[in-house]
Amino acid sequence: MHTQNTAKQPHTEPSADESKKTHVTLINYNEKEFEEKEITDPKEADSYKDHRNVTWIDIDGIYNKETVNHYLKYVKLHPLVQEDIFNTNQRPKAIDYEENVYVVLKLLSYDEEKSRVRVEQLSIVLSKNFLITFQEKEGDGLAKVKELIRAEKSRIRVMKADFLLYAIFDSVVDNYFTILERIGERIDILEKKVIDAPTPKTLQKLNSLKKEIIYLRKSVWPMREVIRSLERDESPLIQKPTWLYFRDVYDHTIQVIDTMETYRDILSNVMDIYLSSISNRLNEVMKVLTIISTIFIPLTFITSLYGMNFDYLPELKYHYAYPTVLAFMLVSAIGMILYFKSKKWW
Amino acid sequence: MHTQNTAKQPHTEPSADESKKTHVTLINYNEKEFEEKEITDPKEADSYKDHRNVTWIDIDGIYNKETVNHYLKYVKLHPLVQEDIFNTNQRPKAIDYEENVYVVLKLLSYDEEKSRVRVEQLSIVLSKNFLITFQEKEGDGLAKVKELIRAEKSRIRVMKADFLLYAIFDSVVDNYFTILERIGERIDILEKKVIDAPTPKTLQKLNSLKKEIIYLRKSVWPMREVIRSLERDESPLIQKPTWLYFRDVYDHTIQVIDTMETYRDILSNVMDIYLSSISNRLNEVMKVLTIISTIFIPLTFITSLYGMNFDYLPELKYHYAYPTVLAFMLVSAIGMILYFKSKKWW
Amino acid sequence: MHTQNTAKQPHTEPSADESKKTHVTLINYNEKEFEEKEITDPKEADSYKDHRNVTWIDIDGIYNKETVNHYLKYVKLHPLVQEDIFNTNQRPKAIDYEENVYVVLKLLSYDEEKSRVRVEQLSIVLSKNFLITFQEKEGDGLAKVKELIRAEKSRIRVMKADFLLYAIFDSVVDNYFTILERIGERIDILEKKVIDAPTPKTLQKLNSLKKEIIYLRKSVWPMREVIRSLERDESPLIQKPTWLYFRDVYDHTIQVIDTMETYRDILSNVMDIYLSSISNRLNEVMKVLTIISTIFIPLTFITSLYGMNFDYLPELKYHYAYPTVLAFMLVSAIGMILYFKSKKWW
Amino acid sequence: MHTQNTAKQPHTEPSADESKKTHVTLINYNEKEFEEKEITDPKEADSYKDHRNVTWIDIDGIYNKETVNHYLKYVKLHPLVQEDIFNTNQRPKAIDYEENVYVVLKLLSYDEEKSRVRVEQLSIVLSKNFLITFQEKEGDGLAKVKELIRAEKSRIRVMKADFLLYAIFDSVVDNYFTILERIGERIDILEKKVIDAPTPKTLQKLNSLKKEIIYLRKSVWPMREVIRSLERDESPLIQKPTWLYFRDVYDHTIQVIDTMETYRDILSNVMDIYLSSISNRLNEVMKVLTIISTIFIPLTFITSLYGMNFDYLPELKYHYAYPTVLAFMLVSAIGMILYFKSKKWW
Amino acid sequence: MHTQNTAKQPHTEPSADESKKTHVTLINYNEKEFEEKEITDPKEADSYKDHRNVTWIDIDGIYNKETVNHYLKYVKLHPLVQEDIFNTNQRPKAIDYEENVYVVLKLLSYDEEKSRVRVEQLSIVLSKNFLITFQEKEGDGLAKVKELIRAEKSRIRVMKADFLLYAIFDSVVDNYFTILERIGERIDILEKKVIDAPTPKTLQKLNSLKKEIIYLRKSVWPMREVIRSLERDESPLIQKPTWLYFRDVYDHTIQVIDTMETYRDILSNVMDIYLSSISNRLNEVMKVLTIISTIFIPLTFITSLYGMNFDYLPELKYHYAYPTVLAFMLVSAIGMILYFKSKKWW
Repeated sequence: MHTQNTAKQPHTEPSADESKKTHVTLINYNEKEFEEKEITDPKEADSYKDHRNVTWIDIDGIYNKETVNHYLKYVKLHPLVQEDIFNTNQRPKAIDYEENVYVVLKLLSYDEEKSRVRVEQLSIVLSKNFLITFQEKEGDGLAKVKELIRAEKSRIRVMKADFLLYAIFDSVVDNYFTILERIGERIDILEKKVIDAPTPKTLQKLNSLKKEIIYLRKSVWPMREVIRSLERDESPLIQKPTWLYFRDVYDHTIQVIDTMETYRDILSNVMDIYLSSISNRLNEVMKVLTIISTIFIPLTFITSLYGMNFDYLPELKYHYAYPTVLAFMLVSAIGMILYFKSKKWW
Repeated sequence: MHTQNTAKQPHTEPSADESKKTHVTLINYNEKEFEEKEITDPKEADSYKDHRNVTWIDIDGIYNKETVNHYLKYVKLHPLVQEDIFNTNQRPKAIDYEENVYVVLKLLSYDEEKSRVRVEQLSIVLSKNFLITFQEKEGDGLAKVKELIRAEKSRIRVMKADFLLYAIFDSVVDNYFTILERIGERIDILEKKVIDAPTPKTLQKLNSLKKEIIYLRKSVWPMREVIRSLERDESPLIQKPTWLYFRDVYDHTIQVIDTMETYRDILSNVMDIYLSSISNRLNEVMKVLTIISTIFIPLTFITSLYGMNFDYLPELKYHYAYPTVLAFMLVSAIGMILYFKSKKWW
Repeated sequence: MHTQNTAKQPHTEPSADESKKTHVTLINYNEKEFEEKEITDPKEADSYKDHRNVTWIDIDGIYNKETVNHYLKYVKLHPLVQEDIFNTNQRPKAIDYEENVYVVLKLLSYDEEKSRVRVEQLSIVLSKNFLITFQEKEGDGLAKVKELIRAEKSRIRVMKADFLLYAIFDSVVDNYFTILERIGERIDILEKKVIDAPTPKTLQKLNSLKKEIIYLRKSVWPMREVIRSLERDESPLIQKPTWLYFRDVYDHTIQVIDTMETYRDILSNVMDIYLSSISNRLNEVMKVLTIISTIFIPLTFITSLYGMNFDYLPELKYHYAYPTVLAFMLVSAIGMILYFKSKKWW
Repeated sequence: MHTQNTAKQPHTEPSADESKKTHVTLINYNEKEFEEKEITDPKEADSYKDHRNVTWIDIDGIYNKETVNHYLKYVKLHPLVQEDIFNTNQRPKAIDYEENVYVVLKLLSYDEEKSRVRVEQLSIVLSKNFLITFQEKEGDGLAKVKELIRAEKSRIRVMKADFLLYAIFDSVVDNYFTILERIGERIDILEKKVIDAPTPKTLQKLNSLKKEIIYLRKSVWPMREVIRSLERDESPLIQKPTWLYFRDVYDHTIQVIDTMETYRDILSNVMDIYLSSISNRLNEVMKVLTIISTIFIPLTFITSLYGMNFDYLPELKYHYAYPTVLAFMLVSAIGMILYFKSKKWW
Repeated sequence: MHTQNTAKQPHTEPSADESKKTHVTLINYNEKEFEEKEITDPKEADSYKDHRNVTWIDIDGIYNKETVNHYLKYVKLHPLVQEDIFNTNQRPKAIDYEENVYVVLKLLSYDEEKSRVRVEQLSIVLSKNFLITFQEKEGDGLAKVKELIRAEKSRIRVMKADFLLYAIFDSVVDNYFTILERIGERIDILEKKVIDAPTPKTLQKLNSLKKEIIYLRKSVWPMREVIRSLERDESPLIQKPTWLYFRDVYDHTIQVIDTMETYRDILSNVMDIYLSSISNRLNEVMKVLTIISTIFIPLTFITSLYGMNFDYLPELKYHYAYPTVLAFMLVSAIGMILYFKSKKWW
């Protein structure tokens, strides 16, 4: 029922609702130091540009183009990529521009109110000791990664910006599992309903679930290629030990895809059950109609026969005609019932 | 409902309606200079043949073979390719003939009047500092590119003919997004109709949409290969910095294909909903028939029974026979209604 | 060793009808000279064996094994290949035996009388300055190529035997387009019929068209591989400039395959329309039945009620009973009609 | 209806019916010499172990493990392969163990009595000048190859053991064509039945044919890979000239697969025809029911109306009431028939 | 970092039930020596850490994280892998960490009570002379391998730890065959039921079987890649002679996949039979209804006609009216029956 207007022109600006607020968070850390602050004036971040520690600028809500562009000056980006950040209908991808790596991912979250999956674009620019993230919409999809950094003795604090990139990937993919869990639960509920009491409503839910998986695939399938191309390009920005971690994320992505495809199969299975229980119902209805009609129509013919007003209708005079006819009708009704039973219609 | 007669012999001439007019536009530019003129006499263009600036000759409507051939003399083309320009049923392709690159694309536009997608072939020959485009039909599909060149400080003015080729690709693919948007809107409308009030008309629209996507795929899928083969051939006519731009177009093409495939999935989904709402309707109709028949047929039998004219039918004499029979019929009718309710048919 | 007279293309008659006549045509040409003669005695051709000009022996109808074998002596062929020429159920293929190249193609023609596609095997042996073609059945499928050679200033006259091979390929693939055009027309006709007035006859036509495309694919798909393998093997018998021409044929083959696949999709689309218009029809029929039954069955019950012969049936005595009952029946009939209208059944 | 219990544990023994007899035939030949004898005592074969001629030991029925193992001593086999010979549920495969080549094929034969395809495993061990074949069940599937060897001037007599291997491959694939021919005939018969008079019996036959093709594919598809892997391994046991022959078998295998896939498509086509002729039939039945009901139910209502026993029912007294009612009923019946005709229901 | 308790295999209970007991078995062996003991205190195993013999620690039930971690100290594992052992929703995979090889497999067993397939994760760490297995749940899935080791002269006793790894793979894949055999039997039973007497119950069984195969595929398909990646990585821990054995397991895996895909095809075949026998049934029911209705509705009309109470209804007076009407009705009934017979409805 929800439509991610996916077919938009790639160069058009994002759903630029300037009323919505952009939150910018700056985190600067190394093994021992840690600093986190909300930035309101873009210039506050300038001093961190060539910092020795890892600096992460997280821009939550890319509603204001100027603010965003300010931070883009810290890293040298190809002009096309600058436009890409504002084009929120892209496929997940990773491009290696020697001095920095540009990654587009899709953040998925489950919108409890509207009970549907919300898709949000996450652009990441990784530079030396520096990482900027651009979240399309308000609402922090990377809160878990921030918590990890805040924890003093976590591995992420010891590592460089490439590990931060991994942590973001991991958090994104972890979220896919949460979404799948929701979908799995909804499939289970639907499956039971379809067997017990299928209604057109069930079908609608089935179809909206199907559609959700169609959109999900669009976000998740390219992830594989993203990680692979990161590995293939062998950017000096990503160090070898971090690769083992990316491979782990890769395995998880495959698992997500696997599960998603399994769900697709199961959904089409459920669809089949739905369709055949509908036709079973029709069969059942038809049987009842046929049995009733087949028993009573001939009987009614007989009664109708003796309702005729012919002057010379000899049976009408016989004393035992009525009970005889009644008995005959009873016998033929029973006969037909037995016939249907033998056909297993009853 | 519309058929692009796609299966034509490849060597047959285009739908050669000589009455239609061919518009030839010549654009000559570099960073500072800019000249644009409509050409009526082919010879007007001759002086631009080896011009130092970038020269673009845009032939809009390849109805007149001689006119077209005049411009082909400026670039050395393989005789087979000369024929290809007039064969307007080709697949998108790119061939590298050392001295020039020959590209076939498909221009799509949405015909508002007939409310269907119009396909037009665009042949491009890229030579050093020189680019000729052959648009199959009247109506300028490259107007946006011309506007870009007219803008004095646009990037295209600084670059060479290869960038002009990119700009054309970009404009063509951008148009695909516009077409997809239209299709997306129409799918949304159809989906609602299918759920609310499906009619055979809806089915027809569904099918014509399906067919449109089938034809669209034919135009769009080969685009991927076109860009890839341009890259693989490494023609000296296309400079390295321009590659980053082509790669961007490539990403957009993938996105178009992705969206198109998603629409296909959704359309087949909508088709499923249509079919099962039709069968739901049948079920509902059958239920009403069955309920009415099942209640009244036995009752009619009873009334018919006492309509018989037997001389000796004792019940007819009883004083309370009529109300008794009425009561019995009422009870059995209610009984059946309750039975149907328990079966959830009502 | 392999007598697979099995797995026949269904429309292929047995090729061993000795009563049918074999026509042998010899064409010998170079840029200036041209000779064409019908050969009745195989020995007439012997003098052309090592001729400086290009010699083409076209055997139309391989009914007589001895005649065929006579010409095979001119070129040294692997014994397996000799057998292959008489096995008319092969897949298109190309094999490079250093001294000559053996190619199997499928000639398709549209049989107007039986209105179906006729498949014929065409074996070609290309040797230096020498080309032999073996057409399975009577009826010249290569007439167009011969016309090209007869034309004095055509390109084919300047070129060698490899160009003749290309000309045959081109003519064969051109024919595929003609066949596809026919199929396209038939699909259009069927599509209209299916929407306007589908009958079981339409379905049969639909299915025979489907089957024709299934067989067509068997002939056309391997063509791609045939041209590719010719290119890969880089036989010295095929000169480089001719490759550009083969690549053109290759592009046309892809286009044929593309169109064929599009037709498949459209046919399955038409099939869907057929099926749902059938079920629409059923729905319409059911609605009429239900409406009529639902209106009249209860009414008949009422009339039947007052047809009972009870002695004490008070209503029968009332003076206004009849008009009252009539009015009641009218009202309930109208009520039901309104109900159905509200349900959009009418 | 037949089940090849395909899912057996690979290490279990074959359907070890010891009562069935194992036939062992030894053939020893070169261009001039030829010896063929039935062997009852395994030791008879010992002297042929390192014979200069080609020796072929054909074991028909691998019921007796000891007998089989005796011959395995002539060639050095990996212990796993020894077990494989007795595991009759393997996929066709070819493994190159330097000193010998181990091949598993599937012999198909058409069981006329039970009218179904019989699958039998054929294991082959090729060693220098030595070839052992293990046929799973009684009944010689390689009789044709033996006949070829018996013919004094056949090519096989001149060649080595690798050509014998080819001859066996060729005979096996030739058999596939015979099987396909049978299936093709049965499909043709079914197709006619489905159009003329489809019954549930037809469906069952259709499905058992479908299942047969499913099992066939399991035997035939891996054949391609078998021949390819033989070629890739370049075993010194297989000489170069023999490769041309194997390539021929490869082409035939592709042809078998092609035809099989075509049959699959046609079968699913036939299935579609079946389903829609069933639903056409339902439609026809429904139409008859609806027409009869729709015509007579209202008429019966009218007659029923004047069967009411009201004291004051004025029409009953009119002299021309009866003919008027009759005429009215006739007119409305005709009207409805015309209506149905206009709807093309009749 | 990855808490994907999500996307569970539906039949997998939560594995964190601390009440369940973990069984640890240590087996130490070489050709001559053999020791097997149940370990309760993890420290008992410490002395075997660098043993000259092959040591296998089998942990059955990974409920207690501490116990598990104790054994992990014997081999140096990447921290991510340590977490993977407890994440029981992984895909089968093999990763080569120079000093050890980490493998994840899926143990399948058929739960007779609940008559469904039980999935259990098996993690294996292979180190030099050392192998640890982690079985997710209670119940020894590797009992057969242990028996092989106990047998004094078995090949496994002579070989190193890599052969033990093979033996485990072999036992796991062997089990897949057992599962498939069960599924095959159930399909056969269902197929018979579907033809003889299909009920909605049959459909449900069909669908649960379908679902089981969907989940099975998830476990089995990646196995191919697991073995291939083991081979590709060429770990020094796996010696060359063992490769022949792994290739054998690979062949078996392919066979399992093949059979599984065949079962899928057959199941969808059975589904088709089910659906069309349901619609056949509907057809049969409809025919009976139509025949009965079509015969009796017109007859009832006639009787009803002469039940009218018109004062002037001349036929009522005729002496032979009643037998005439009776005869007429008989004739028309027989006529209709003959008509239906001619239409093959009866």
